[in-house]
Amino acid sequence: MLTDLTAGGPRIIGSPQAAAAVKWGKAKMEELGLQNVRLQPCMVPHWVRGDREEAFAETTDGKKTALSVTALGLSVGTPAEGITANVLEVHSLAEVDEKARGKIVFYNGPMDPGYVLPFDAYRAAGDQRNEGAKPAGKFGAVAFLVRSLTFALDDIPHTGHTGYDEGRPRIPGAAISTLGANKLSELLKKDPNLKVHLRLGCRQLPDVESANVVGEIIGSEKPDEIILVGAHLDSWDKGTGAHDDGAGVTHVLEVARLLKSLDLKPKRTVRFVLFMSEEAGQSGGEVYAATVKPGEKHVASIESDAGGFPPVGFGLDAPAGTFEKALRWASLLAPIEAERIREEDSGSDLEPLMKSTGVPVFELLTDNQRYFDYHHSDKDTIDKVHPRELELGAIAMATYAYVFAQEGL
Amino acid sequence: MLTDLTAGGPRIIGSPQAAAAVKWGKAKMEELGLQNVRLQPCMVPHWVRGDREEAFAETTDGKKTALSVTALGLSVGTPAEGITANVLEVHSLAEVDEKARGKIVFYNGPMDPGYVLPFDAYRAAGDQRNEGAKPAGKFGAVAFLVRSLTFALDDIPHTGHTGYDEGRPRIPGAAISTLGANKLSELLKKDPNLKVHLRLGCRQLPDVESANVVGEIIGSEKPDEIILVGAHLDSWDKGTGAHDDGAGVTHVLEVARLLKSLDLKPKRTVRFVLFMSEEAGQSGGEVYAATVKPGEKHVASIESDAGGFPPVGFGLDAPAGTFEKALRWASLLAPIEAERIREEDSGSDLEPLMKSTGVPVFELLTDNQRYFDYHHSDKDTIDKVHPRELELGAIAMATYAYVFAQEGL
Repeated sequence: MLTDLTAGGPRIIGSPQAAAAVKWGKAKMEELGLQNVRLQPCMVPHWVRGDREEAFAETTDGKKTALSVTALGLSVGTPAEGITANVLEVHSLAEVDEKARGKIVFYNGPMDPGYVLPFDAYRAAGDQRNEGAKPAGKFGAVAFLVRSLTFALDDIPHTGHTGYDEGRPRIPGAAISTLGANKLSELLKKDPNLKVHLRLGCRQLPDVESANVVGEIIGSEKPDEIILVGAHLDSWDKGTGAHDDGAGVTHVLEVARLLKSLDLKPKRTVRFVLFMSEEAGQSGGEVYAATVKPGEKHVASIESDAGGFPPVGFGLDAPAGTFEKALRWASLLAPIEAERIREEDSGSDLEPLMKSTGVPVFELLTDNQRYFDYHHSDKDTIDKVHPRELELGAIAMATYAYVFAQEGL
Repeated sequence: MLTDLTAGGPRIIGSPQAAAAVKWGKAKMEELGLQNVRLQPCMVPHWVRGDREEAFAETTDGKKTALSVTALGLSVGTPAEGITANVLEVHSLAEVDEKARGKIVFYNGPMDPGYVLPFDAYRAAGDQRNEGAKPAGKFGAVAFLVRSLTFALDDIPHTGHTGYDEGRPRIPGAAISTLGANKLSELLKKDPNLKVHLRLGCRQLPDVESANVVGEIIGSEKPDEIILVGAHLDSWDKGTGAHDDGAGVTHVLEVARLLKSLDLKPKRTVRFVLFMSEEAGQSGGEVYAATVKPGEKHVASIESDAGGFPPVGFGLDAPAGTFEKALRWASLLAPIEAERIREEDSGSDLEPLMKSTGVPVFELLTDNQRYFDYHHSDKDTIDKVHPRELELGAIAMATYAYVFAQEGL
């Protein structure tokens, strides 16, 4: 299934490929014999990268060094001739100050390899990418560069969402490869007056309509009690979004296939949701939460958005007391060594639903030391996904989905 | 460190590369400041692959199909002109009977993907490779082929040790790629009288001297109580033995580096051993066990031979009651999610020591769904080893080594 999905290319929100993926997901659900297969329309941003992305450093003696960059998602572009300016290197948002005026702010805080869990390192360094435009724009910077959020040392830049404050200047932002960041930092030490030239052809087009894809196995006894199994269909436009979140989409459809092929008849409804627009705006998650019907009760939700690596258990975001309930079932996953349960913040897709209904969110946890080598970059392709690792994740999710459907939580 | 080791090429027993690896290991231990760095001489087989390895199927209409094969380790070769014979396809040792006479026995039992742990599937199918010559030779077969022990479907054959019964005919044996095995099986269904031609240039030379490499951090309070940390230096001659067992060698040396760089002074002696000849004959493990001094007590031994993948815990082979003792320390590894302890048979290197002293053997367990994709094949190269995954294994081993050195077991 992942082969089919990634063969269509990356599925960036608003793109023809994302629209094709919606059609593909619906057809797959119908082919699997799910019930109530439907689309839930939602509006999504339509941002395009354009065809010009380039950057180089020029030292005061006129020597140029090319830098490998890629625009951050939803960034504004530069003027057609690019931006050329001095550089202020910082390692956190807090370091940005008046010195940024007229310059390109270069956020060079690395992901700290001392974190055992790569997601913790990602979250700790990630505000530079997510929020970097805000302090830089406030202090009059003309653009910003962000060290790619990866432990890998190579020349591949990693994109990802960036945000602006309403009413503040919107300045262009790009990710720079880790080797490029090291090189630029080194050049700056020798020549603080060097200039960087940055040209980004990206731009925002009017929002377009897209959709979540939803299908069900209707519960035989309590059809209004829902176990949601979800992942996100959109990706960034680098690689083919194989791990992020092609793997999750495959997990969701594979859970459906497993339950159907074993001819299991869940007592509660198992609802499969492929969300749109997780990578920017999360309108799919909001639309889903807003369309919950009166009388419908979400018992539990299970999401996969941590890559197709070996499952180790589930992160749980839930009201007090749920952790102990969930632990009752954890040992069912001991045979595949995925019995871990850890309290964790929920993923973006299910946050609106959790806020409105209090549904416990189970996030598949994977052994993903390699994840950020690929994440949001040209390297996130199907050859990085191992079929046995991927299948074990689906087995973990199917087990919980079925048990919750039969027993509640 | 792994880069240095694998840069020398594969380290098959008896080879100049294995001899160079012994020198390298000794130099590394000296450089790390270990004490009593020494070699423990042992005799090892000297088997060479030769330069001719080929096989093809020829159907009765004269059509030839090339098959991707490689000689099994320690196999005898074929005559220079090769062997051409009809084929008996079987799926287990037990199926071999009188029908094998004059034929090439083709063991085509796959590794069963239904096993969650790849090593379980490997062990279940592995007797075809390890013991295949025995029933085939007994019933008068002229050679044997074994389906490569891997879940991967590709055209790369996976070698490995094969054994002969004393006083029985020694017939040549080769691994065939999984795609080749599928092809041959398909051809046999249509044309049971097809012949296979097999030519193997491998041969056995006289045994040569090699050595284990040993170094220590001598215990400050109980120098005669030993915590052994080991892995094997030799590999097969395919790829560069990066996971098997270059990763283990790196783990052992990295444990030494961690203890030294943190300036820890263990109360008991931590002894680092790089064993020779694990892949065939295990003479290094025997020599080690035979040279234990009177008065020396082995408290625990820790081995890495499951690849440089993320650690999940330790397999334990030990006298009754040890499991509960070991569990006391397991939670120390919860921060790196490697707190699992599972009863398991020990690896080959430490078996002789366990037999003679009863020392508990802790085998590093890894999340190794990908291991047999690479194992004993051209694919076992350094690009398959992830630096963070490798380092976490060393951290797990270092933690246990230090705790056992301070607290006993």
